[in-house]
Amino acid sequence: MEEILTRLRQCRPLIHNITNYVTVNDVANIVLACGASPIMADDQEEVEEVTASCNGLNINIGTLNSRTVIAMERAGIKANQLHHPVVFDPVGVGASQFRTRTAFELLKCIDFEVIRGNLSEIKMLALQQGHIRGVDVDDEDIMTEGNLEQWIGFVKNYARKMKTVIAVTGAIDLVSDGQRCYVIYNGTADMAKVTGTGCQLSGLIAAFVAANPGQILKATATAVCAMGLAGEIAKTHMADHEGNATYRNRIIDAISQMDGKTLERGAKYEIR
Amino acid sequence: MEEILTRLRQCRPLIHNITNYVTVNDVANIVLACGASPIMADDQEEVEEVTASCNGLNINIGTLNSRTVIAMERAGIKANQLHHPVVFDPVGVGASQFRTRTAFELLKCIDFEVIRGNLSEIKMLALQQGHIRGVDVDDEDIMTEGNLEQWIGFVKNYARKMKTVIAVTGAIDLVSDGQRCYVIYNGTADMAKVTGTGCQLSGLIAAFVAANPGQILKATATAVCAMGLAGEIAKTHMADHEGNATYRNRIIDAISQMDGKTLERGAKYEIR
Amino acid sequence: MEEILTRLRQCRPLIHNITNYVTVNDVANIVLACGASPIMADDQEEVEEVTASCNGLNINIGTLNSRTVIAMERAGIKANQLHHPVVFDPVGVGASQFRTRTAFELLKCIDFEVIRGNLSEIKMLALQQGHIRGVDVDDEDIMTEGNLEQWIGFVKNYARKMKTVIAVTGAIDLVSDGQRCYVIYNGTADMAKVTGTGCQLSGLIAAFVAANPGQILKATATAVCAMGLAGEIAKTHMADHEGNATYRNRIIDAISQMDGKTLERGAKYEIR
Repeated sequence: MEEILTRLRQCRPLIHNITNYVTVNDVANIVLACGASPIMADDQEEVEEVTASCNGLNINIGTLNSRTVIAMERAGIKANQLHHPVVFDPVGVGASQFRTRTAFELLKCIDFEVIRGNLSEIKMLALQQGHIRGVDVDDEDIMTEGNLEQWIGFVKNYARKMKTVIAVTGAIDLVSDGQRCYVIYNGTADMAKVTGTGCQLSGLIAAFVAANPGQILKATATAVCAMGLAGEIAKTHMADHEGNATYRNRIIDAISQMDGKTLERGAKYEIR
Repeated sequence: MEEILTRLRQCRPLIHNITNYVTVNDVANIVLACGASPIMADDQEEVEEVTASCNGLNINIGTLNSRTVIAMERAGIKANQLHHPVVFDPVGVGASQFRTRTAFELLKCIDFEVIRGNLSEIKMLALQQGHIRGVDVDDEDIMTEGNLEQWIGFVKNYARKMKTVIAVTGAIDLVSDGQRCYVIYNGTADMAKVTGTGCQLSGLIAAFVAANPGQILKATATAVCAMGLAGEIAKTHMADHEGNATYRNRIIDAISQMDGKTLERGAKYEIR
Repeated sequence: MEEILTRLRQCRPLIHNITNYVTVNDVANIVLACGASPIMADDQEEVEEVTASCNGLNINIGTLNSRTVIAMERAGIKANQLHHPVVFDPVGVGASQFRTRTAFELLKCIDFEVIRGNLSEIKMLALQQGHIRGVDVDDEDIMTEGNLEQWIGFVKNYARKMKTVIAVTGAIDLVSDGQRCYVIYNGTADMAKVTGTGCQLSGLIAAFVAANPGQILKATATAVCAMGLAGEIAKTHMADHEGNATYRNRIIDAISQMDGKTLERGAKYEIR
């Protein structure tokens, strides 16, 4: 995975993000931390032009509104025309009909290179059913060694059906293009106590994929390993009195200080 | 107050926040830190559905616009129908006719369980007059031991009139349901140098109250003590070269690391 | 420059910010850190009233939309009528026709006291041409000792033409009113790896200028020195494992802890 990160730092891709206003600052800082450059723009008057000057697009529906839905569609269609990779983060899909309807509309009019979500979100997209409670994963949707085989099959199937890379992140992360599936063991439970680690990862994926065309599966898996490893490294620097706000900063710090060798050594995954 | 925090961490309520884009990330992180789960959603197409799936609602007018006012009203009315607690943070009421008019419209169409503001804001709501300069408390509106008795009477009266819990936070904090008044001495002067400590506290109150139905007064007072105590604990971990940005993180950290015993021992209040 | 900072801390100006949702929280915290008080308000229904109660206005087009453009125009015109200083930060001008058109519209209807941008942005405004890639400075637009003389002339000319103070920030910073030009050597290369250091500086400039009427050039140069020096001080407190997220906090911390003597001693500039 070292060469994936090296290439990202060499080509410093420009990433257009249409994302939510809750975690947007962290997304910008982590995209800068990994070696790419972020631009946020969500008005329909400028998104096509902005995305045309970028190398990749990251669409996140965390705080949707009617104005930004149009911007997402226009930017996505434009990025597709230019063969820029587009990442989709369906935050909280299923939490409202508006989010669910919007997610399916976006899937219909945009070809995504990667879709990343927690298991509840990806189940909602794949099965058009499930139990969604807010933006966090449902308690029933925890991946374990016991049910891993079943979820690998599920993710591979959905990736094949969508002709895209699917990344399901949680206690164990799965990244598949329909043929192979990276099973990734990096990360910590505390990462769920920081708002926006998922949003940040989607920004990273857009950067890693934009810098490594033709290696979408591996670039996505590398971004997922890097984020999880950052969470592990960050944890080693936490004092007892420090909690989730400091942890947030240390995760982004760890991405900015991570070199290819550390990532290569620290990535914990198997391919099935 | 220990049992109030314990119950919050057991039932992990889901809190819907319609809040400003300045401090929204800190609100999300502190709601996670206290043991609850936040969702931010402010489009009128989804707020009723989102709030229906939550346990409490936090409405904050810090960066109002015409689009979000409608969302606030719809969400509040829905939450009332479902008997979910609704917290109101009238940030900067009086700073413009738009904010003042909106605040009174919201008070007319929504029954709030708790209203939290600084003394200038609560005076503006109660007396429909006062001097507002930006979003910070006016210099004239500083609570001291000398004028405390007068303000306790004022807060009790307004709570009785509104049939709600009123929380006025500042150098000394007052929390009253009209009968009793918690006079709370936790906190530090430096907290006013961090943007959004008030917004964060309103998010905490929504979480504490949602997890402790039937104990609104005590749950609100507990949240106020917890926030002030977090500010005190955070201060003990500050190096000389550290200032308000680090302090912001350490306050949220202190909430995430606070246990019931620490809160019970550290809370400094009397009931009048 | 000591007396400029002293006066700011004495008069604690209230600064109205219409800015982007990416870095808005950092802008609020750094404005508080320097001793001023921020208010963010961007709805056309309230901006004139809000700005009238403030001492200065900071307009930033980082995440423009059609709703906020109107608010910017109204607030700027009102601030001009009241002789409040108005600062303009043309983030990403040239990245889209929408941004470029809006920037020129704002320049036509508002008299700005100070315009601050990176060299790519200021070139785009002055020459109506250039190469813009996202919101970061273009690789061609790096100021060095070798081409410094040329850029000083350029900045002086544009300041004279616009009858305003122009601040171009980068590896070397230039601040000119058309007659004199401060050439400022404070700052670190790492500051470019933190999102929003430019936006934060524009907020600081608005505060410094609002507190020091009649000394716009010197107040702007002082703010630029203070920000660069904060970056230098922050760097001395960074551990090896810390990166851009912690650096962000330490820069704001350094502003909040900076006294006049430290600023006076640490400011590195010459006047040409």
